[in-house]
Amino acid sequence: MKIITISREFGSGGRELGKRLADFLGYAYYDKEIVTAIAQQNTLNEGYVEKILDQGIYPQIPLTFGRTFSTPSQYNTAQLLGAQEAIIKELATKGNCVIVGRGANIILEEFAPFNIFVYADMPSKLERCRERATPEEKHMSPRDLQRKIRQVDNGRAKQQELLSSLKWGDKKGYHLCVNTSGMSIKALTPQIASFAQLWLGEKEQ
Amino acid sequence: MKIITISREFGSGGRELGKRLADFLGYAYYDKEIVTAIAQQNTLNEGYVEKILDQGIYPQIPLTFGRTFSTPSQYNTAQLLGAQEAIIKELATKGNCVIVGRGANIILEEFAPFNIFVYADMPSKLERCRERATPEEKHMSPRDLQRKIRQVDNGRAKQQELLSSLKWGDKKGYHLCVNTSGMSIKALTPQIASFAQLWLGEKEQ
Repeated sequence: MKIITISREFGSGGRELGKRLADFLGYAYYDKEIVTAIAQQNTLNEGYVEKILDQGIYPQIPLTFGRTFSTPSQYNTAQLLGAQEAIIKELATKGNCVIVGRGANIILEEFAPFNIFVYADMPSKLERCRERATPEEKHMSPRDLQRKIRQVDNGRAKQQELLSSLKWGDKKGYHLCVNTSGMSIKALTPQIASFAQLWLGEKEQ
Repeated sequence: MKIITISREFGSGGRELGKRLADFLGYAYYDKEIVTAIAQQNTLNEGYVEKILDQGIYPQIPLTFGRTFSTPSQYNTAQLLGAQEAIIKELATKGNCVIVGRGANIILEEFAPFNIFVYADMPSKLERCRERATPEEKHMSPRDLQRKIRQVDNGRAKQQELLSSLKWGDKKGYHLCVNTSGMSIKALTPQIASFAQLWLGEKEQ
């Protein structure tokens, strides 16, 4: 099974890269499917699940897992992370795929995925966020948007902390780190695909 | 002028990558030429200049530059770094080139170079060091070799600190960070060249 995982800073174009890579290589692309499956299995609102698992915005999980869960929301968060891990592992056995975020680089370690980290400077991230702003983001000041970018990235870093001692964004944990500042994701796709193919032993004929 | 700079962890294959990239792209490759020119200009031993500038092993430069130079060796180090900067800038104006190490990513900022950072895990670096060991390194225990790798990298980090507030090895300062653990540098070369060409606006026909 050939698996590419993409970890990314919010606004760096990681999701677009994931979709484009999957298209380019003919791999499956898993993103909202994971959220949908978890929401269905747990009869939860998809938006809620997405906020917790995709954006990494969720209440701190107590370190004393075994002792007690003090609030229902904390219980749900732990449950959701468990459900996410199971679904990601199940998807990984189905065939070649690209998975964006959600700690897939750690969760799928046994599958030896090709792990990419996508990052960019703040002006580029702000511009990218503006271009594809949600209605909520459209009304944000640059300062608020910058705060949101930092908040989402902190959430992602914390999510990885629960899974691994490897720090989120530390290049040691990835095969390739790509700075997308001022770059077109579309133009970068064949280059990154070629790297992934080389690493995954799928050299072009 | 199209310029590629390569910063690298000791033993990660950065120098080999630099040579191969230059060959592949038909760019000039500057390495020992810089050391030779500085040694000649300053009537110094090449090995001494190399130890200081290439491996980053040199006495700490006092932060109080303007006040006094307490020892001749400190005076030489500051001189050498100045000479290195001048030579690197001169070479950069001569045509497309690849420069490995020596803070060229910082020194040549005005030329908008494509900056690569090459790294690897410790077992890979030890193996690579073993393969191309100097007579001195051949007799080192793995522990001593590991210490040498750390020492050289610390020297490189300190050298960059003198030039920039950007930390050596922090992915923010590079366009592409490549993990060479277990990879053939030869096989990686076309992929990295393709990235550089894209970034430098030299898209293949």
